[in-house]
Amino acid sequence: MPRKASLFRLSMGDPGDVSAIEACLADGRLKPDAIAAILGKTEGNGCVNDFTRAYATQSLRAMLARYLEPHAVETVPLVMSGGTEGALSPHWIVIAAEKAEDAVTPGPALAIGTAITPPLSPSEIGRPAQAFRVRDAVRCAMARAEIDSPADVQFVQVKCPLLTAARAATVGGDVATVDMLKSMGLSRGASALGVGLALDELRDMPGDMIGADRSIWSSRASCSAGIELMACEVVVLGQSPGWCGPLRIASTVMADAIDAASVRSLLARVPGDPALAVRAVLAKAEASSNGMVRGQRHTMLEDSDISATRHARGFVGGVLAGLVGHTELFVSGGAEHQGPDGGGPVSIIYSLQASDLGT
Amino acid sequence: MPRKASLFRLSMGDPGDVSAIEACLADGRLKPDAIAAILGKTEGNGCVNDFTRAYATQSLRAMLARYLEPHAVETVPLVMSGGTEGALSPHWIVIAAEKAEDAVTPGPALAIGTAITPPLSPSEIGRPAQAFRVRDAVRCAMARAEIDSPADVQFVQVKCPLLTAARAATVGGDVATVDMLKSMGLSRGASALGVGLALDELRDMPGDMIGADRSIWSSRASCSAGIELMACEVVVLGQSPGWCGPLRIASTVMADAIDAASVRSLLARVPGDPALAVRAVLAKAEASSNGMVRGQRHTMLEDSDISATRHARGFVGGVLAGLVGHTELFVSGGAEHQGPDGGGPVSIIYSLQASDLGT
Amino acid sequence: MPRKASLFRLSMGDPGDVSAIEACLADGRLKPDAIAAILGKTEGNGCVNDFTRAYATQSLRAMLARYLEPHAVETVPLVMSGGTEGALSPHWIVIAAEKAEDAVTPGPALAIGTAITPPLSPSEIGRPAQAFRVRDAVRCAMARAEIDSPADVQFVQVKCPLLTAARAATVGGDVATVDMLKSMGLSRGASALGVGLALDELRDMPGDMIGADRSIWSSRASCSAGIELMACEVVVLGQSPGWCGPLRIASTVMADAIDAASVRSLLARVPGDPALAVRAVLAKAEASSNGMVRGQRHTMLEDSDISATRHARGFVGGVLAGLVGHTELFVSGGAEHQGPDGGGPVSIIYSLQASDLGT
Amino acid sequence: MPRKASLFRLSMGDPGDVSAIEACLADGRLKPDAIAAILGKTEGNGCVNDFTRAYATQSLRAMLARYLEPHAVETVPLVMSGGTEGALSPHWIVIAAEKAEDAVTPGPALAIGTAITPPLSPSEIGRPAQAFRVRDAVRCAMARAEIDSPADVQFVQVKCPLLTAARAATVGGDVATVDMLKSMGLSRGASALGVGLALDELRDMPGDMIGADRSIWSSRASCSAGIELMACEVVVLGQSPGWCGPLRIASTVMADAIDAASVRSLLARVPGDPALAVRAVLAKAEASSNGMVRGQRHTMLEDSDISATRHARGFVGGVLAGLVGHTELFVSGGAEHQGPDGGGPVSIIYSLQASDLGT
Ligand SMILES: [Ca+2]
Ligand SMILES: [Ca+2]
Ligand SMILES: [Ca+2]
Ligand SMILES: [Ca+2]
Repeated sequence: MPRKASLFRLSMGDPGDVSAIEACLADGRLKPDAIAAILGKTEGNGCVNDFTRAYATQSLRAMLARYLEPHAVETVPLVMSGGTEGALSPHWIVIAAEKAEDAVTPGPALAIGTAITPPLSPSEIGRPAQAFRVRDAVRCAMARAEIDSPADVQFVQVKCPLLTAARAATVGGDVATVDMLKSMGLSRGASALGVGLALDELRDMPGDMIGADRSIWSSRASCSAGIELMACEVVVLGQSPGWCGPLRIASTVMADAIDAASVRSLLARVPGDPALAVRAVLAKAEASSNGMVRGQRHTMLEDSDISATRHARGFVGGVLAGLVGHTELFVSGGAEHQGPDGGGPVSIIYSLQASDLGT
Repeated sequence: MPRKASLFRLSMGDPGDVSAIEACLADGRLKPDAIAAILGKTEGNGCVNDFTRAYATQSLRAMLARYLEPHAVETVPLVMSGGTEGALSPHWIVIAAEKAEDAVTPGPALAIGTAITPPLSPSEIGRPAQAFRVRDAVRCAMARAEIDSPADVQFVQVKCPLLTAARAATVGGDVATVDMLKSMGLSRGASALGVGLALDELRDMPGDMIGADRSIWSSRASCSAGIELMACEVVVLGQSPGWCGPLRIASTVMADAIDAASVRSLLARVPGDPALAVRAVLAKAEASSNGMVRGQRHTMLEDSDISATRHARGFVGGVLAGLVGHTELFVSGGAEHQGPDGGGPVSIIYSLQASDLGT
Repeated sequence: MPRKASLFRLSMGDPGDVSAIEACLADGRLKPDAIAAILGKTEGNGCVNDFTRAYATQSLRAMLARYLEPHAVETVPLVMSGGTEGALSPHWIVIAAEKAEDAVTPGPALAIGTAITPPLSPSEIGRPAQAFRVRDAVRCAMARAEIDSPADVQFVQVKCPLLTAARAATVGGDVATVDMLKSMGLSRGASALGVGLALDELRDMPGDMIGADRSIWSSRASCSAGIELMACEVVVLGQSPGWCGPLRIASTVMADAIDAASVRSLLARVPGDPALAVRAVLAKAEASSNGMVRGQRHTMLEDSDISATRHARGFVGGVLAGLVGHTELFVSGGAEHQGPDGGGPVSIIYSLQASDLGT
Repeated sequence: MPRKASLFRLSMGDPGDVSAIEACLADGRLKPDAIAAILGKTEGNGCVNDFTRAYATQSLRAMLARYLEPHAVETVPLVMSGGTEGALSPHWIVIAAEKAEDAVTPGPALAIGTAITPPLSPSEIGRPAQAFRVRDAVRCAMARAEIDSPADVQFVQVKCPLLTAARAATVGGDVATVDMLKSMGLSRGASALGVGLALDELRDMPGDMIGADRSIWSSRASCSAGIELMACEVVVLGQSPGWCGPLRIASTVMADAIDAASVRSLLARVPGDPALAVRAVLAKAEASSNGMVRGQRHTMLEDSDISATRHARGFVGGVLAGLVGHTELFVSGGAEHQGPDGGGPVSIIYSLQASDLGT
């Protein structure tokens, strides 16, 4: 029996506000056991001291405990990404997966699979070992999603750890960096290269590539770092004939921060009116390392008052909002080895049924 | 003899870097006496303690002193606006005006006129008196630009003062507010309403309208506050049959922070390829006061780490950059009574001669 | 039978880290039913969008639920104050109160009483009604602490609400201000004046005094605002003959941000070595509204990159840490009507038994 | 004939306000040719994009041009340090040196000597070559100050360069780091070790010591980085029998951010009342790299909203202001190899003549 994915994009009044999700559970639109993953775009700074992510996670688990067994509560993938700069609107994206008992639109359709690596040692963060762990988890998640070919994977969201002084001390200082903010970038980068390995986008990964050779990147990795976990949580989204239903997913890569053309082309692939059909937009944003965008100087890397990832999220969020027509966009910052330097992957999940409310 | 406007949009390496302007003067492309106004988008925070504006002004005057008489150095309108969030690129816009001795494209063409109010008393800042002063200056500038009809005015840039504790003390505390950041908003708002009065967009201005009745606004005012002056410096841009040359100006109003449609319509009015024809883009951005954009919550007014005007500039800068194709956009923040709440005017200056380099 | 207060000052690894408190409960040093109040100094920005306060509160309640009945979990006073700028160290202060069954140092000794106002209407926040509510709650808390005379009250900690756009809308906009950050100041100020009324420090409270007449202040009020509640939570600390044990409390007022002399005098009143005897330091800090400290200009009110309350907490935190000798100081910002303009109350809780560990 | 130093500590209304210095020149208190160095504590963020330093420098040079020959204007040492967090007050410290024609208090007295290295190649910044350059400049400055023994040197202020992407490109990327903020730290550290070499505080300097071995430090180096120059500007302050007059200088080292005891001891060495005698206080502040202060956790290195150097300046500024009694303190951030990790040198310049106004 094929499976069918549903997607609920829900507003959050604050990082602890899970009421919109609970409403879906309470009225039966969402079955607790069907929850495959919950993504949250929370209104913190998205950098080191962003506690909205942990607050949201704790709030989700407390609510889910009223609907799920403890083991399920602890293991459902929760991917929180901080930062809603500019007019970006904080929101949840709940993806559910169920057996398709009724007749529904045949696939190939949106497919989801998740996996989690074992906890990493602090020594592994930002280094090849992390990439290999993520590669294995992606392959596992693909299998769970019944996605056989890497070409059918459209977006891989990875939640990865970061280094703290305390964690570095536990391994005698044998870490990639002592800078917490920098460790976030290396962790994201290593995770992205792991996705690239799993999707056959790259074959090898020399030890000195991470954070250094920006010409190597995955077109479909989206990685966010946080202090909340030591493992890498992987969510694979793609299409599979083993799945049915009206949801589809497509992706592209923004070559730079203002590459609206690529996104317009992506939206043009949506049958019908994108304003009605598109259910979710997931994107990566970053400040190009050479300080330029199409020959013009940017100041994101020199602003000591506002982190470059905050600048990039707000700006690229604007580019995308102008194209999509609303602000509930899952834009995360720090796109190391995710798309080219200064650019990043963009994915849209849309429905073939424009009147398909909430899914 | 008709006049002809030229426009030079030049990169700035830092707020004190006037070298690109000086190069134009040195090689004769720009005649010192022809300088009508210099606008600068500098990389400060655009709020109270933004000293890049004063630094840029001082740098400009020091350079101009090598080309102009002292009186001219002191009086050429210099309008500095701080804030280049996201990928926005710091730049100068020099507008020159000369008698058109050679045969050129006939008008009506881009016309510029400037005027300055007398210094305001601190008691007048953010109050009706300021609006009336600005109204009078706009009318004066229109006359100098030979723009007879308000309908031919496309964009009025006003540089206005702000209140400091010291200034408030000089009038015994009889001021609109004791909050410096708030005084910037009231000053911008009063200036905008003054523009509206001059352009017949509103007839009266009750004393309690400023900063309160957001339904009253000018469609063509762009106001920026700073500590550097106590007067209001007014630059009127429009079209006049008394001017010739290939430059034209058109404007629209963004209804909200993601109103890309209005800007697309504006760009569609440009003959030829906007990517080649458009010479400058001037826009106002702000965070809607109700905390929403098309029904979705934004966090700009609640972020105690980043000022709402900084958020708005970076985000709307992204919307515009995705449409225009580059990042040298003159986006300023704080659009009180400039366009509707959450939106603001956008103006483009373009050339009928796509090959018209630098002008 | 007299009561005895105990105080536990415990480190927190992050705003959700309640492990140090749970350790005290687990090994019996702290009895769950004895918890009178928990104060938390969390590492958020202490302003509007500081979610560390709510995260800490949620974490505390989840942990207490393992030790207390639901009603107790919901009603134990939890006062979270955000902001640990400079070297200030995030920590909990748990105050317990029990019947003194064993022979202990006779009083008068540290006494604690708590009360909570009914939820305020948004219309009441920052207005006289709030002050009267707080006055009544302080009197109630004094009675519960068996403190008969206002002179025996040393420190009143109030957690008060703030205004949001949504809350303002529920009362048709009939609110003291539409600015969330400003509402925090008015709420703190109104609460402080309420404390002053209860302690007979002022007799009347004209409606226009709040946030305006800075010459009126309470010497013992410490007020912190947050979005987490609509009521005012009051914790009264003082001394009473109805209490025994080795803990004592004394307070002073810093006349300005660098008034170390007052604090030295306060510390000199401690018998023995303050470094061993002092168990907790509670202080209020703020930026003087006239922009000066002893004739020298400060920039705290003009820094658009860092909120004035953050500046003040870090700086006054340094003044105090240099005197006290460590950084676990409960310094909160925004001292409107709490001590003079630019200054604020400081209170120390100390033990007559220097070897009295953890209490 | 001996020389005599004078010191003028003057308020600045904003980074471009040189009026207080000009007033001293105009009324003859300060002779233009006598200016040995001008230090400025400006109200920028003190990090990468702090343009108050360049603005102040430009303002000073423009003013000095009215009093000095062009060569002198260009070469008088101007050392701008950004960051006046907390209540720290922006100010100038002008040190003058003249032949002592009148009978004055005999020395040894405050002595000043300055020197500047050749411009560094970007490849040298943050590397041993920079340390050696600074060592040579310190020796040269000592000779100019007639300070023969390193033990008589009390404070060496160094203004050093930082790396930008553009500068790195000119040497094919052969630089110590590509991170501008990090390059400031390495540049400060290399400069400090150069001071240490000149003062015989260390003998060798292995190539991998800079920024790594925090146990190696100078007790009298104070280094500030900025984008404004490529050379290292060195100002040596100490005492010499070749100098006379009432000014003296003494220094100590704060072992950590709250080491008030060392500073109290230093102030106790001042004859008379320090409140009247002390003319200037110069100090370095930083966030300890292990995240702790006397066993308590600090959050300065994890706050992605406020740079650690800003936190440290404001906090240590508070510690010092509580001891000194005013806020015109020259506290600069980033004390790599300047004093121990988390601490830094503190120097006071005081007068034997309490009634000695302005000098
Ligand atoms: Ca990328
Ligand atoms: Ca507007
Ligand atoms: Ca106060
Ligand atoms: Ca140090």
